[in-house]
Amino acid sequence: MTRPTVTGRALAVARGEEPADVLIRGGRVFSAPTREWIETSLAIADGVIAGWGDRDAREVRDVDGAALTPGFIDAHMHLESTKLWIDAFVETVLPLGTTAVVADPHELANVLGLQGVTALMRAVEALPITFAVYAPSCVPASPFEGSGAELVASDIVTLIDEHGAAGIAEVMNFPGVVAGDPEMLARIAAAGPLRVDGHSPELSGPALDAYLAAGVESDHEATTAQEALEKRRKGMWVFLREGSASRNIRALAPTVVAHGTDHAAFCTDDREPSTLLADGHVNDCIRIAVESGIDERDALVMATARPAEYHGLHRLGSLGPGHQADVLAFDALGSWVPAHLWQAGRMLVRDGALQPGAVPTAPPEPLLYGTVNIGRHPAPEDLAPPVADGARVRAVGVESNSLTTRHAVVTVGSGEDLCRAAVIERHRGSGRVGSGFATGFGLTRGALASTVAHDAHNLVCVGADGADMAAAAARLAEIGGGQVAVLNGRVLAEVSLPLAGLMSDRPAGEVATALSQLGRAAAEELGVTIAEPFMQLSFLALSVIPALRLTDHGLVDVVAFAHIDAQIA
Amino acid sequence: MTRPTVTGRALAVARGEEPADVLIRGGRVFSAPTREWIETSLAIADGVIAGWGDRDAREVRDVDGAALTPGFIDAHMHLESTKLWIDAFVETVLPLGTTAVVADPHELANVLGLQGVTALMRAVEALPITFAVYAPSCVPASPFEGSGAELVASDIVTLIDEHGAAGIAEVMNFPGVVAGDPEMLARIAAAGPLRVDGHSPELSGPALDAYLAAGVESDHEATTAQEALEKRRKGMWVFLREGSASRNIRALAPTVVAHGTDHAAFCTDDREPSTLLADGHVNDCIRIAVESGIDERDALVMATARPAEYHGLHRLGSLGPGHQADVLAFDALGSWVPAHLWQAGRMLVRDGALQPGAVPTAPPEPLLYGTVNIGRHPAPEDLAPPVADGARVRAVGVESNSLTTRHAVVTVGSGEDLCRAAVIERHRGSGRVGSGFATGFGLTRGALASTVAHDAHNLVCVGADGADMAAAAARLAEIGGGQVAVLNGRVLAEVSLPLAGLMSDRPAGEVATALSQLGRAAAEELGVTIAEPFMQLSFLALSVIPALRLTDHGLVDVVAFAHIDAQIA
Repeated sequence: MTRPTVTGRALAVARGEEPADVLIRGGRVFSAPTREWIETSLAIADGVIAGWGDRDAREVRDVDGAALTPGFIDAHMHLESTKLWIDAFVETVLPLGTTAVVADPHELANVLGLQGVTALMRAVEALPITFAVYAPSCVPASPFEGSGAELVASDIVTLIDEHGAAGIAEVMNFPGVVAGDPEMLARIAAAGPLRVDGHSPELSGPALDAYLAAGVESDHEATTAQEALEKRRKGMWVFLREGSASRNIRALAPTVVAHGTDHAAFCTDDREPSTLLADGHVNDCIRIAVESGIDERDALVMATARPAEYHGLHRLGSLGPGHQADVLAFDALGSWVPAHLWQAGRMLVRDGALQPGAVPTAPPEPLLYGTVNIGRHPAPEDLAPPVADGARVRAVGVESNSLTTRHAVVTVGSGEDLCRAAVIERHRGSGRVGSGFATGFGLTRGALASTVAHDAHNLVCVGADGADMAAAAARLAEIGGGQVAVLNGRVLAEVSLPLAGLMSDRPAGEVATALSQLGRAAAEELGVTIAEPFMQLSFLALSVIPALRLTDHGLVDVVAFAHIDAQIA
Repeated sequence: MTRPTVTGRALAVARGEEPADVLIRGGRVFSAPTREWIETSLAIADGVIAGWGDRDAREVRDVDGAALTPGFIDAHMHLESTKLWIDAFVETVLPLGTTAVVADPHELANVLGLQGVTALMRAVEALPITFAVYAPSCVPASPFEGSGAELVASDIVTLIDEHGAAGIAEVMNFPGVVAGDPEMLARIAAAGPLRVDGHSPELSGPALDAYLAAGVESDHEATTAQEALEKRRKGMWVFLREGSASRNIRALAPTVVAHGTDHAAFCTDDREPSTLLADGHVNDCIRIAVESGIDERDALVMATARPAEYHGLHRLGSLGPGHQADVLAFDALGSWVPAHLWQAGRMLVRDGALQPGAVPTAPPEPLLYGTVNIGRHPAPEDLAPPVADGARVRAVGVESNSLTTRHAVVTVGSGEDLCRAAVIERHRGSGRVGSGFATGFGLTRGALASTVAHDAHNLVCVGADGADMAAAAARLAEIGGGQVAVLNGRVLAEVSLPLAGLMSDRPAGEVATALSQLGRAAAEELGVTIAEPFMQLSFLALSVIPALRLTDHGLVDVVAFAHIDAQIA
């Protein structure tokens, strides 16, 4: 974060010699360093807190005893998981109190590489949010998938030096780091004095030591208090995550209650639009933390001062003079939804409502569109080659609320749950298709398809037959990406995600509604029984997490780290 | 701090596949983030903590229940105040547990400018300490004195970009910052993402707000808990100072007891060699803090993790894997003198003794010598022009334990304490002399002189007559700087400070002994009654602190910010 030079006017306001832009009067100001509530006024000038205490002002806003806190900071998240473009995201989270996020555009980078990341950086410039972009460190994430792009160490240096990337995003390839893979170490070294975020689920003991020794500084994958405690003791920062699928704050709260907030912050990692709309964003993390027994002030510290401290955002996370005037006013703290919000001194939320014009549109650049290129459309038999009843096949076994899959063996035609699955390379039009089987969806008719498919984001589909799978794939190719449910060649419901095949260019409410209709169509018309079929679909190809995955190169035994035949000879 | 790339060997040691260089076994490791003592072993490889827990090692050191802490960090200090060159300083403080300091070479810069600062930076490279140099921000400190050099904003940029200065050192010209002086704001802006240290004694309310709004982030001048509390509440970092003269930890302790350690760290600012030898360094801060009621763990946090956090020294301040292996082993914590010390993995202190060859010599470059150039030697009557008995004169009134001076009016020959005072420009041989009077020294015979004279470090002397003052000045010119006591033309005692006229090139013990003899000579042979005559002498010209000062340009009324005649017409 470069240091903004203070204006002469802001200094004059600080000294009390010129009227402030706004005086927020009658509130209690949260002081993170001393964990106190201070009754004082805040004078804002030229976007910064110019001073504490009453001063003349062009506009006086009496907040009548409201609690005033710094804007909330998300220590780690992926914009792509919200399926929203940046302007729709900002519109959604500003009224929830979020004024800064640290984002890892890992998915965008897998599709569009450096140019996708920099397009996002350019788009965010005009928006009322601090959006610190970290350089994706593991693109592609796996050698088993054909991704749209690759980012090597020199690209990371380019992102930092030429485009202002603020750190190195989660180093997911922790086995590579632990083993000393030179390319991974070079990417970490590219951080220079900046931060290196980690991703190390269940890593402990000597392997964790090696990961830390390599220079990784944070983790957001801890799921137990014991895991978080070992990581913090060893100097790692722990981001307590509350995403849509992975919800860890309740389990991690005891480590904060027992040992304080040092090296702890909140993050949302992956939140669906429906979660943002129903539950909230960082404010939801605070709510759950307080419900879990964490002191209200400690929860606020982890949503403001701590992430600012870790990420070196020294002008954020405090309402002290000289800090950016990102101010939230809460009528009652328990609600965790601010009545008013000022971002860089401008009142953007008033009485809970986003003000007209508060968030300008940030039109996505053309390069973000048209990324779904499957070449020659696959025939039904490419996606679901004939297989005889009685054949024994390996099927990717999905389970609700789990990212891992089972390595299932199913007999075709036995009545056990089974559907066809296929992954179509969609970046280069190579025509490459990996086909196989899946179990656990409950799907009995039609097909589902998605261009959101971690981490390479190829076109993944499951179906009862090859014809509907082909129709679903063709539809996604036609609309440039998204998620769709098809029955008898007809589209039942769909979400268009034309930006890199990952994000919508529509408002959050529209996207959430479409997603909800899509889920209903799958359940009600295709027989799907699993709770989040499209989430499971989007992880079907994730060839870095056990046990069995299907990619455009075919079936992968992730435990053995090798390709394997779908049909058992 | 650039990020060192981890070695393959360190990673192999972390994984437990190769023997460590050293295994420190049987200790309790301090975890700052969780404020715990953890019973575990530390495996060190290639200078870093490679892992926790037992591993094979080339050398096993059993510390038998010792408390293991990170090396101590001084958040702000001036090497010049120790009167020691960097190698002698490191020899002195390593056995006290200090492994890192953040230094402001303000005095050196006033004498030698950029080239003096960079000579220090080069000298320290070979030494076993992390010595982060901040760019001096206020050289010269005052328009009333002729300094040896000037550092403008572009010089600060040079120091950062080309020489690795790690931040902007204390911005002493707080009135200039508060008033919005463009040059001061440009110097602050030069910090970019780095830290800007402050210096704001008693600043509060709107003036403090303006100082913070301008971008200053820390202060080490708070003397009351109330002052420290306001600063911390407003987001400022407070460095609790325990120097030789200014000792503030006892007074500030209550704010830490009440509000924790966030935004708090220890610093020594200015410590004389005798204080280092008798009381210690950062370990003395800890001792006093604990005596003042601060929890032992909180005191350790303020001496390790907090300064590392503020200054962005992310590889220091923790014993977690991946951190530099700066390890202290204490047999008993109360002593605060480590039994053993490892710096970057090398055992440099063993059973309390610095190991032979632990600190290599760091020969000062020639440019640091020969800085005392007074041109034509002043005659006795230049230094002490004739004045008639009965004349009323303005005298700089010094008082023990005070940096401020009184604006005294004394009648010559009345029997009131009075001596002659003179400041000789010593950088450019201009022959410029400011002459006047001083009261409070008690000096009745001979003369004292010093080339340590904040902030321009001209040659300042006081004496009973011009002849001994001239002899004292001539002696300092002859030896290239230092401090001296003269009687009847004969040198009674002296300390040679040939490096910029500020620092010795001798070991600490020698310097402390010479300083002690000098003080005794002043008291026993010249009638001096004030406790620290050379400290008072060194502040006689400090024309930024009230009330009356003498510079090479003559007498200065600091309250009126104007020159004034010594003799009242």
